[in-house]
Amino acid sequence: MKDILIIGGGGMVGQKLAHHLGNHGLNGDRDIAVTLFDMGFPSDSAPGKQVTGNVTQAGTMTRLVAGKPDVIFHLASVVSGEAEQDYAKGWAVNMTPMWELLEAQRALHEASGGDYVPRLVFTSSIAVFGGPYPDKIDDEFLSAPQTSYGAQKATCELMLHDASRKGFVDGVSIRLPTICVRPGKPNAAASGFFSGIIREPLNGQEAVLPVDDTVRHWHASPRSAVGFLTHAAGLDTALLGGRRGLNMPGFSCTVAEQIEALRRAAGNDAVALIKRQPDPAIIRIVSLWPRDFTPTRALALGFAAEKDFDEIVRVYIEDELGG
Amino acid sequence: MKDILIIGGGGMVGQKLAHHLGNHGLNGDRDIAVTLFDMGFPSDSAPGKQVTGNVTQAGTMTRLVAGKPDVIFHLASVVSGEAEQDYAKGWAVNMTPMWELLEAQRALHEASGGDYVPRLVFTSSIAVFGGPYPDKIDDEFLSAPQTSYGAQKATCELMLHDASRKGFVDGVSIRLPTICVRPGKPNAAASGFFSGIIREPLNGQEAVLPVDDTVRHWHASPRSAVGFLTHAAGLDTALLGGRRGLNMPGFSCTVAEQIEALRRAAGNDAVALIKRQPDPAIIRIVSLWPRDFTPTRALALGFAAEKDFDEIVRVYIEDELGG
Repeated sequence: MKDILIIGGGGMVGQKLAHHLGNHGLNGDRDIAVTLFDMGFPSDSAPGKQVTGNVTQAGTMTRLVAGKPDVIFHLASVVSGEAEQDYAKGWAVNMTPMWELLEAQRALHEASGGDYVPRLVFTSSIAVFGGPYPDKIDDEFLSAPQTSYGAQKATCELMLHDASRKGFVDGVSIRLPTICVRPGKPNAAASGFFSGIIREPLNGQEAVLPVDDTVRHWHASPRSAVGFLTHAAGLDTALLGGRRGLNMPGFSCTVAEQIEALRRAAGNDAVALIKRQPDPAIIRIVSLWPRDFTPTRALALGFAAEKDFDEIVRVYIEDELGG
Repeated sequence: MKDILIIGGGGMVGQKLAHHLGNHGLNGDRDIAVTLFDMGFPSDSAPGKQVTGNVTQAGTMTRLVAGKPDVIFHLASVVSGEAEQDYAKGWAVNMTPMWELLEAQRALHEASGGDYVPRLVFTSSIAVFGGPYPDKIDDEFLSAPQTSYGAQKATCELMLHDASRKGFVDGVSIRLPTICVRPGKPNAAASGFFSGIIREPLNGQEAVLPVDDTVRHWHASPRSAVGFLTHAAGLDTALLGGRRGLNMPGFSCTVAEQIEALRRAAGNDAVALIKRQPDPAIIRIVSLWPRDFTPTRALALGFAAEKDFDEIVRVYIEDELGG
């Protein structure tokens, strides 16, 4: 029996991961027990033992891992927009709990005589990068974040990798593209419109486009995000060679290309629901973001994402609108 | 009157900085008041108000900066060898106090209505880098540390840069080469022999060389380190363009070239005092270190170091042996 803990299991990606584990097991292994930790859960939550709490409360991480889970997914985070607006909260949620988690793991590792070394998969982000950028960001590009969210994710990576080098945990940091198309309501992320301009029209509703349609960005679907997480949980980390942060694959396109994919899937009437309302604050934030990658290492290690934006739209229609 | 605080002011570089400030002021400004903070001070300490304490004690950083210094040099650190042997102590000394310092600065900044923004110069290290390396490391090379010391320094850089971006402090991280020739007794740094094989023979004593003489590394003198610190304190940080970590200049040479410089300065008898005793542990650690740099940005910003190893030996003879 493999114990799996999802910290942030009530969120969109955490719920999709838990649904996947319930339906398919973890990389084919169905002898698993899943625990979901979050501040709250949807009423139609994915299967798993629910534990409610707040990662910022001291001692929470220690209690959570006391049962020595075999695999830990750490997804809990405040999003980029909120972390930028509220510096103290951003660091308190996005950094400090990782440190406490790793200290708890060190204590458990040492108490076990060195036997206990769980896999720890951390959802980092392409926000660890900052400009000026090359046309395509390769696996050697430096992490120089220009947002608090990016700095917090990069800090967690450093801590996780040092604890892994010491053998307390076996960590992997996966740097997620912007996940698109997110189901449900908009969140506080400045990137929300990338999903909104597809999701709202497909549901017959108006969507606001706050940036120019020449904006280029790096995307993968929620289904791909679940694939990244489970693949990272089963990865042979010896292949990482001391660099445990991986740029995940995705698809790079402009907003105009996104809109053309929507047109192919749902016609001109859907596209007509997109209202252009430039927002200087969002334009500024988005101008700081990376646009394209060559994720050579991740592809070689077997991570996979969509090959075009039509596929990303199709995944949303299949997974959220019943095809 | 400019208030200057040196955290780690009792150490070798801190003392040299304080001596320099006493003799020359800060970049020509002699209207200064210097406070030195450390666990202890040499009996012949450089001038300055001495404050004794430990950065790991909660509240220490807050008390230290309550008087709102104009310039803060944060040099306090356990060295690489000790940080690697004692993981908990390394993170407790090399990371946590930086976080507390920045939180104290944020509170002071906010209480001042945004007026108080001190310059904060942090001594980072080329240990933030990890292999595989290019022949020469440029300003775009990624930080992927392979030691706890390097991970701690890189973490502090991220925190300092985010607090600077938010305007709480005006930070600069200077990534020091291995400082050579260190005066006095050997310390716990694995790099100690780089100084020892010059210092001990110049003082008529035997020195141990634990690595092969083909080992190449990146050096600058203590005098250059003081120059880096004072130059960083006066730098126009607008020129940094959001990347506040700077690889400092230095000189790259092999141990064999170091030994030839010693021979030119002090003859064959001095060289004969070097005893070759390979140490597998030190050989392994040193093999992980960077060897050469092209520090284009720092040179363009006016940072300067020695042009050859003969000059590094000459600086030691002038500054420590009275010429």
